[in-house]
Amino acid sequence: MITFAAGPSKVYDKLPQYMMDAYAQGILSANHRSAVFMNLYQETETLMREKLHMPEGYKLLFTSSATENWEIITQSIVQSAGCHIFSGSFGKKWFEYAKYIEPKTFAHKIDAEETINVEALQIGNDYDLVALTQNETSNATQVHNATIAAIANKYPEKMIAVDTTSSMAGIELDFNLADIWYASVQKCFGLPAGLGLLIVSPKAIAKAKDKGEVGRYNSLNFMLENAENYQTHYTPNVFGIYLLNRVLQDMPEIQHVDKHTRDRMRMLEDAIAYTSKFRLLIQNPDARSSTVMAVTGREEFISEIKKNAEKEGMQLGSGYGALKPTSFRIANFPAITDQEMERLITFLKKY
Amino acid sequence: MITFAAGPSKVYDKLPQYMMDAYAQGILSANHRSAVFMNLYQETETLMREKLHMPEGYKLLFTSSATENWEIITQSIVQSAGCHIFSGSFGKKWFEYAKYIEPKTFAHKIDAEETINVEALQIGNDYDLVALTQNETSNATQVHNATIAAIANKYPEKMIAVDTTSSMAGIELDFNLADIWYASVQKCFGLPAGLGLLIVSPKAIAKAKDKGEVGRYNSLNFMLENAENYQTHYTPNVFGIYLLNRVLQDMPEIQHVDKHTRDRMRMLEDAIAYTSKFRLLIQNPDARSSTVMAVTGREEFISEIKKNAEKEGMQLGSGYGALKPTSFRIANFPAITDQEMERLITFLKKY
Repeated sequence: MITFAAGPSKVYDKLPQYMMDAYAQGILSANHRSAVFMNLYQETETLMREKLHMPEGYKLLFTSSATENWEIITQSIVQSAGCHIFSGSFGKKWFEYAKYIEPKTFAHKIDAEETINVEALQIGNDYDLVALTQNETSNATQVHNATIAAIANKYPEKMIAVDTTSSMAGIELDFNLADIWYASVQKCFGLPAGLGLLIVSPKAIAKAKDKGEVGRYNSLNFMLENAENYQTHYTPNVFGIYLLNRVLQDMPEIQHVDKHTRDRMRMLEDAIAYTSKFRLLIQNPDARSSTVMAVTGREEFISEIKKNAEKEGMQLGSGYGALKPTSFRIANFPAITDQEMERLITFLKKY
Repeated sequence: MITFAAGPSKVYDKLPQYMMDAYAQGILSANHRSAVFMNLYQETETLMREKLHMPEGYKLLFTSSATENWEIITQSIVQSAGCHIFSGSFGKKWFEYAKYIEPKTFAHKIDAEETINVEALQIGNDYDLVALTQNETSNATQVHNATIAAIANKYPEKMIAVDTTSSMAGIELDFNLADIWYASVQKCFGLPAGLGLLIVSPKAIAKAKDKGEVGRYNSLNFMLENAENYQTHYTPNVFGIYLLNRVLQDMPEIQHVDKHTRDRMRMLEDAIAYTSKFRLLIQNPDARSSTVMAVTGREEFISEIKKNAEKEGMQLGSGYGALKPTSFRIANFPAITDQEMERLITFLKKY
């Protein structure tokens, strides 16, 4: 069964080999204060610079999940409050976690078909952080680098934090435009779940130090203190970090991945345009995600296509929340091979 | 290289097969809200009851690490303050994390050679939780079930929380005696690091509900709400949970593991008694751990034995903190085979 679900998704076909290598090399028993681990961490960070163009001075940190990252940002960086701009369920969840820690957190909800109107955007001095969900997995929308650039340009004194849980390593992100970026490895990195990535700029590091929040097991200052020596604030998922390292080694530079992702998404969109029973959930091409596609149709057709796909060994992702009965989603993640995607496209074109 | 370190330690020899099975069965891509995951969680909890004798009504929860568990307990269960009884570095760290959340947290430090004198113990009404480090990995001491029983008997109205990071699944713990138990899988469970276990009694669950702490990503009430449906509060390390499930299936019931652990520790102690250059760090047999041994000697001999062991393909664990130059530690964990332990014993007897 090939899974096209955008939750924990297909892992790279080479994983079994890497898992065996990890076992043979003793990585599964490596102490997280040892040179073996510190080298692995440093090398993985270097690979993030080489392959994903993470800028010099930006620091890679390991957490348990994107959910934990939601909280760390408000806990350890936000000084007054965050202004959260979102259109879907994950953006809303992030807002809710942040609001619990800082009740003055503001929600600026936009429609899924809408892009952020930066010109009209008014964010007052009460907000020192702008929170963006770059790729909203629930409704398959995205925010472009150009929009992030425009916000950064309009509000140079504010921090920008960007949720790229299901887009980092799938499309090219201009990390210089924002201060906090995060992701989960079970999406575009094509790895088993259980590891969150958090990337912070020198400005974010300085702000965390200035805020001075300490004492929690995941206080950013404590994490950074450990990370200076390429260590972590708790016994981490060393196995997951090793697998991440191997997958990054294999990866072409992100601009090539980006082109491939976008080209393939166009092929998928063409296939849906070809069908008579389905249409894209998001009609506005400027709002539409490059890594996750949502397709909508009448309830009976959605149920039928999911069943028929399963019969042919393919699992379509369900729609999210209220959209579950009337939509399905397809992950356009790099670990899915072109051959697998072609098989799906051939199948979709039958409708 | 066989590692006898008590940090992330030797994993079970069958792990490669289980890793391949996980890949082949698609577990690495399983959604954590799917029936596949829910069944895995439920089955793993049942195995914890069957193999480790976790009582009915006690709930198994998954976290990122023991470090996170330290915090969850004070955050979500403690209503007034905890009284922490400890002799070593990890007990002290737990106290410090707890104190940050609740400044009234009390430290009752005892000597490593000392056992808890329950008769003389006076814990006032200001403390609603007693925190014990059942197995203190830093100095290789332990607290017996009988001592926990005596505390529970003396203070039936208080909660007891027990750190068994490096003893759970290695010795028999009487879970009925306390309300909160936790561990990490990279110790006696013989698994790769990256997963913490938290076990809570019905009394602890009721107390968490009564306290009503919510809103944090790891609020115990939120975790419990998810766990009711065998789901988790974040995308968990599904791979790690699958490996835990497989290892639990293989495990004999804990009383047999317990006997084996204690018998083997006696053999190790005999080997050290046989040497002229080393002695056990902990002289009091009642205070000494069954799963971790600390051996002390002159700095030059410690350095020499560690080097020689490496030459023979065996890695001894370093002493912890200030004890590093004058001691080494040996993990007596179930994943280490008798053959490997015999090789170590033969080696030790040369000194």
